[in-house]
Amino acid sequence: MKSESFPSSARDALLFTPGPLTTSLGVKLAMLHDAGSWHSDFNAVVASVRERLLALAGVSRETGWEVIPLQGSGTFGVEAVFQTCVPPEGKVLVLANGAYGERIVQMLKHARIAHTVLRTTEDTPNDPEALASCLAADPSVTHVACVHCETTTGIMNPIEDLGGVAKLHGKCFVVDAMSSFGGMPIDFEGCGIDFLISSANKCIEGVPGFSFVFARRELLFASEGFARSLSLDLLGQLKAFEKSGQFRYTPPTHVVLAFDQALRELEAEGGIKARAARYQRNHEALLEGMVKLGFRSYLATEVQCHIITSFYYPEDPRFDFTEFYRQVAERGFILYPGKISLCATFRIGNIGRLTEADMQQVVHAIGEVVTEMDLKLAARAHDDEMEFCRE
Amino acid sequence: MKSESFPSSARDALLFTPGPLTTSLGVKLAMLHDAGSWHSDFNAVVASVRERLLALAGVSRETGWEVIPLQGSGTFGVEAVFQTCVPPEGKVLVLANGAYGERIVQMLKHARIAHTVLRTTEDTPNDPEALASCLAADPSVTHVACVHCETTTGIMNPIEDLGGVAKLHGKCFVVDAMSSFGGMPIDFEGCGIDFLISSANKCIEGVPGFSFVFARRELLFASEGFARSLSLDLLGQLKAFEKSGQFRYTPPTHVVLAFDQALRELEAEGGIKARAARYQRNHEALLEGMVKLGFRSYLATEVQCHIITSFYYPEDPRFDFTEFYRQVAERGFILYPGKISLCATFRIGNIGRLTEADMQQVVHAIGEVVTEMDLKLAARAHDDEMEFCRE
Repeated sequence: MKSESFPSSARDALLFTPGPLTTSLGVKLAMLHDAGSWHSDFNAVVASVRERLLALAGVSRETGWEVIPLQGSGTFGVEAVFQTCVPPEGKVLVLANGAYGERIVQMLKHARIAHTVLRTTEDTPNDPEALASCLAADPSVTHVACVHCETTTGIMNPIEDLGGVAKLHGKCFVVDAMSSFGGMPIDFEGCGIDFLISSANKCIEGVPGFSFVFARRELLFASEGFARSLSLDLLGQLKAFEKSGQFRYTPPTHVVLAFDQALRELEAEGGIKARAARYQRNHEALLEGMVKLGFRSYLATEVQCHIITSFYYPEDPRFDFTEFYRQVAERGFILYPGKISLCATFRIGNIGRLTEADMQQVVHAIGEVVTEMDLKLAARAHDDEMEFCRE
Repeated sequence: MKSESFPSSARDALLFTPGPLTTSLGVKLAMLHDAGSWHSDFNAVVASVRERLLALAGVSRETGWEVIPLQGSGTFGVEAVFQTCVPPEGKVLVLANGAYGERIVQMLKHARIAHTVLRTTEDTPNDPEALASCLAADPSVTHVACVHCETTTGIMNPIEDLGGVAKLHGKCFVVDAMSSFGGMPIDFEGCGIDFLISSANKCIEGVPGFSFVFARRELLFASEGFARSLSLDLLGQLKAFEKSGQFRYTPPTHVVLAFDQALRELEAEGGIKARAARYQRNHEALLEGMVKLGFRSYLATEVQCHIITSFYYPEDPRFDFTEFYRQVAERGFILYPGKISLCATFRIGNIGRLTEADMQQVVHAIGEVVTEMDLKLAARAHDDEMEFCRE
């Protein structure tokens, strides 16, 4: 019965990535059911998932909020907001300091939606003052979009200040909170959020297969007729949930059942605050261990989030990331096997069903590989030499 | 660990629907792994799945074919073809005789792609002669699109004849084979197919979460710059597979592992011919049993496929479909709980991990419910009265 081509150790390698994540056995076991996507039992699960997501976000239908799950990866959910809600004459201002901000720019290019980009370097948060100047100078902007935790590096962007500026100028504020929602408290009203997107396989610790969009109902219904794609039509998706309680098109039923269980486990853990505290401990255990080994973290402490941590490559010319990654993986720990930052860094995720002990284990494995590869780690003595990366 | 809100009988109800389907335990067990979507082990599975899909389709890279899995439901895959491949000045002729043909029309409307629709009634196959006339009359058409097995009713459309006409006029031919691929042999070259779409949770008997598109590489690369959506950009998706072996954005890893196992089980069953034979036996067992009970099938035998079978509602005024459905479901058999045809019919699916014995069981359960509801079934005597439905 077992998949032959997928490795069969006593346990799967642990995933220290920004998702897909290591999930609990309970979450995976929930997938051992075939549910009829039209049947009342399954639709009761869908309704319950949507209710609990709203509660988790601290918003409610009474105050005008909706949550709309959408098939596909997180990117599909982010794109759905723009494809559905930006009017033909609209213009989006994108705040970008990493690959996910740039991905929003790509979406807008594909959809032929007018846009402008306000960039900061990868180690510098989006700048609310620069946003204010841009909005004052260009009244044609209708939407402001940003990435809450930019997992390219793990930098936190100041959504409360950005949202304040957007609201002051009367703009719609869209937040890609893919890797942060569920892993830290977010004050939707306090941040002036109009649309917020996350996905099943991030801090809720479900498995990948759908995203979900929190939306102000009024804004969504004001978008009637704008949608440039049927599959990505968020308003159409919401109407189907309201009419029949069902996803508009076939949902990933097993993934939804896993998510239902993941929400239950999040509640049992103590909700978002307790989960944020665990992730924070994971991040601290990782950082402490890596610094002891001689690695240097990329971001300044005050802009670093606890979701994912970036480290500079060692300066030792014998360092080869592919080989380093392979040897750590051989020990049962999967790092993110690539560099998406413009700078020579690698990333270790702190989220998923991982604890401080797991972080200590991955640090231990990395230490072994450093010894095995005979790498000299003295990065801390060479701060000045790395400065070029901050350009 | 068990999901509390999902029913916990000794077994799940069997699904007699057009998907999601009842799958094997082996397919579901394959989901008990967390795979890193960037890791080589997982990418080996993705590469193998793509190779085996091409082989299953009887096409190859050497003769210019590619297969591109895409996150989301089958609808996302169909829409991706049009969003990616129709040039700005293109025009699509849609052959429609049911809800899925009409869905293509909706996609084109959303994407502001010029189109025209050639409709036949739900019990009448798409007409190759009418297609030929249309194409002769409107040279601006660039693409012809049809649905192979229209699961609204279970009617088969003559893709070989339609494709022949499309090719004669030099048009690109797009086939939505969602519910037929894997469940019956399809001669890609003989039918003049350029793009064919199916999904994970149909006749391959995987779980829902992605679709896949067979495409002529030359046509796909000729579409550079056309894509109106980033998420639905098939060419971008293919380029990512070719560059890194990875899905462009987070794939539903568990669903992909299940699909890998489903392909293995399809091969073990004897491939598409053996599976088609099982589905044919399922259809025949169902039809025989239902006719014995006094139900009447909607379609003429010569246009009926073995994927799904539609039956007229009984004429007895005491018949209430919702109650009928509920009572059958209580016995552990889930029918499709709604009517999507324009006519008063209900549908029973023959696909998924179901055998003749299961079909006999669902017929037995339906017989019990007919008795319970005290329904008079004498449809066969009233052929003439039902004729209005064929309008």
